[in-house]
Amino acid sequence: MTNLRAPQNAGPDNRTDVASYISGYFDGEGCFSVAIGPRPKLRVGWEVRPSISVSQKSDRAEVLELVADYFGCGSIRPDPGDNTLKWETRRLDDIVRRVLPHFELYPLISGKQNDVDLLATVCRMMIDKHHLRGAGLLVITEIANTMNPSGSRRYSVTEIKASVR
Amino acid sequence: MTNLRAPQNAGPDNRTDVASYISGYFDGEGCFSVAIGPRPKLRVGWEVRPSISVSQKSDRAEVLELVADYFGCGSIRPDPGDNTLKWETRRLDDIVRRVLPHFELYPLISGKQNDVDLLATVCRMMIDKHHLRGAGLLVITEIANTMNPSGSRRYSVTEIKASVR
Repeated sequence: MTNLRAPQNAGPDNRTDVASYISGYFDGEGCFSVAIGPRPKLRVGWEVRPSISVSQKSDRAEVLELVADYFGCGSIRPDPGDNTLKWETRRLDDIVRRVLPHFELYPLISGKQNDVDLLATVCRMMIDKHHLRGAGLLVITEIANTMNPSGSRRYSVTEIKASVR
Repeated sequence: MTNLRAPQNAGPDNRTDVASYISGYFDGEGCFSVAIGPRPKLRVGWEVRPSISVSQKSDRAEVLELVADYFGCGSIRPDPGDNTLKWETRRLDDIVRRVLPHFELYPLISGKQNDVDLLATVCRMMIDKHHLRGAGLLVITEIANTMNPSGSRRYSVTEIKASVR
């Protein structure tokens, strides 16, 4: 969080607190998710993929650049299929050390903070390697299933449970 | 701006600056627009309708309630057609006295601030009654046409210009 730029519209009266601004932006556009997909090489057969991302129309990428600078991790890429750009970080270490601490000090005001808290729980379990054992994976699967209620699930809980090794 | 509530997730370490949070939220979800529609009773035949609004999925209305409390104006309603709620203010006096001053102190970081500045210009022209005269209405029509480039226009500039009285 060292390379922080001033907002582009900073005028003499600008009182913006960038950290709070970023949380407000994430409350609307941010996504805190845990995807679970098949990975035959792993002993349990499934891989846990935590992610924090935020999107923006590609004609105004300023906030995504601010977010990337502020957290000092993640990358900005075009989101295939629509005219948006997405900042995203999937590295467990970056999520745990760089991004989640921010949302403890500057929590989301809406119920989306629930997704932040659940993602933090899953990440702590991953640090303790629970995702590499069947019992831990099943708990993570249940947690992931309660996150982002409006999102789609590629694999059902039943499907994952039936095939965990 | 007197009846401001603390964020629901305010814990002992919460450092959130609500004003900056709201600007961040508006940078993603806010809409600053000027609609122009037919109004035969007016001498120019067209009415100028400024609006500031922000949407949210109806299952997490917390931020909209915070916005309504913070600005002390506008109303929250279901947005017909999708599963969202919208806070909106259309009263010129509220827009000019209660909402726009906030975005001078806490401007948007993205190019959306351009829409805020153009809306402010139109509102100043409306205070001076320029929208009730043909020449002023044409200037406002041109300004409105450059705002919200991704939005749709119900009436074209050509159509309005051809029929201004």
